[in-house]
Amino acid sequence: MRQVRFRDPDGDVRLGELADDRVHAFPNHGSRLAGEETFPVGTVEFLPPCEPSKVVCVGLNYADHADEQGKEVPDRPLLFLKPPNTVAAHGDTLDLPAGKQRLDHEAELGVVVGERCKGVADDDAMAHVAGFTCVNDVSNRDDQAVEQNWVRGKAFDDAAPIGPVLATPDEVPPDAEVRCTLNGEVVQSSSREEFIFSVPDLLAEISTYMTLEPGDVVSTGTPAGVGPLADGDIVEVYVEGVGTLRNTVSIP
Amino acid sequence: MRQVRFRDPDGDVRLGELADDRVHAFPNHGSRLAGEETFPVGTVEFLPPCEPSKVVCVGLNYADHADEQGKEVPDRPLLFLKPPNTVAAHGDTLDLPAGKQRLDHEAELGVVVGERCKGVADDDAMAHVAGFTCVNDVSNRDDQAVEQNWVRGKAFDDAAPIGPVLATPDEVPPDAEVRCTLNGEVVQSSSREEFIFSVPDLLAEISTYMTLEPGDVVSTGTPAGVGPLADGDIVEVYVEGVGTLRNTVSIP
Repeated sequence: MRQVRFRDPDGDVRLGELADDRVHAFPNHGSRLAGEETFPVGTVEFLPPCEPSKVVCVGLNYADHADEQGKEVPDRPLLFLKPPNTVAAHGDTLDLPAGKQRLDHEAELGVVVGERCKGVADDDAMAHVAGFTCVNDVSNRDDQAVEQNWVRGKAFDDAAPIGPVLATPDEVPPDAEVRCTLNGEVVQSSSREEFIFSVPDLLAEISTYMTLEPGDVVSTGTPAGVGPLADGDIVEVYVEGVGTLRNTVSIP
Repeated sequence: MRQVRFRDPDGDVRLGELADDRVHAFPNHGSRLAGEETFPVGTVEFLPPCEPSKVVCVGLNYADHADEQGKEVPDRPLLFLKPPNTVAAHGDTLDLPAGKQRLDHEAELGVVVGERCKGVADDDAMAHVAGFTCVNDVSNRDDQAVEQNWVRGKAFDDAAPIGPVLATPDEVPPDAEVRCTLNGEVVQSSSREEFIFSVPDLLAEISTYMTLEPGDVVSTGTPAGVGPLADGDIVEVYVEGVGTLRNTVSIP
């Protein structure tokens, strides 16, 4: 199932299923069976599919991107954090920092946590996953290059557009394509098969240190082809089985 | 005023004022004037004084600590992040990671944000501050020493005990002492006068990049004297005008 969170034409925040270019709203009594009320995609405002207390990001998780950046393949995941101020929705205009030479797109598959967990084992990790989504790990290279911790570089407002779909794991093939399109041109394309660390490996490692909460997102790294964003760009992240996250870029 | 958040003997979460070793509960209708209902300190469970969506921490903000660490005084604040999973309360036992050689205390003055803000000017910054609190920036040096971003090193569960008091700025003198006591012995002691970057400077710099939300905490760095914690230790952070944050350490 491809679940979405959205604001309906009356302004109410709802959950529903995205199918056949319509949002099939769940009834308000909490059922996850879509009712008869549907909305054409163009009539709703998509919201981030979850409300993460933290986004835990992984660096250098595709061998080709590590090579592109001139980095060794790490022996354990390189981690960094994006707090809730970074989260943006499908369709939002991203208001990015002024005065930077290089603001980059990074298309990623995001893992949405379904159940609170700590210290999960690899072989039990998927039981704690609600599903997958699209993440754009928008990056400010000017500051990232000179910071010990990538806070100015990665944790600025609108640095983590997410969604719109939360797809259950069965929707997403093991070799799902992860793609970035910039103004209609494909600039990143790879497959989940290229991961250095698998989703269960990542959840096991991260939850050794941190309790993961429902709605938290683990963003699994980006493939080769990262590149600059300019004011007015349309940037899309596509994950096979999930769908497309589209944003417009605004740089003052 | 020294405000606290606490669970009363009936289990209800309340706000109140700490004075004369009693908690003077605010009425439940939202007034900040203490009513006649009071509780002896020993009969309530203190909660963190706020519920931060993020704790933005500052490294090397006392010249003496920078020197102790063999680091240059930075030309802008070194920042790192602690997500909500790190927050612990006064009185909590801190369950720290197993198998590390060196887990350290870091006594800090925390700034609690009162109003949502972005891009604040230095001279307007204090208008967005609710007050000050005590923070222990508990650190895992084993991983901090080898990570690009201090996630395993700084963002593990219970790495940010906070509270119990949120003191309005008028309670805290400009030269307020910041002190750490380990099992009754003073191990860190310095003054807010030693800050490299002032509280308004920090809020202006951080909010250039990130929207600060009510309840968010900016932790202002630690003075010289950081040192190791051991299983069973009692660690206290004292900030003059605020009070004392006390925790017991548990290391498996």
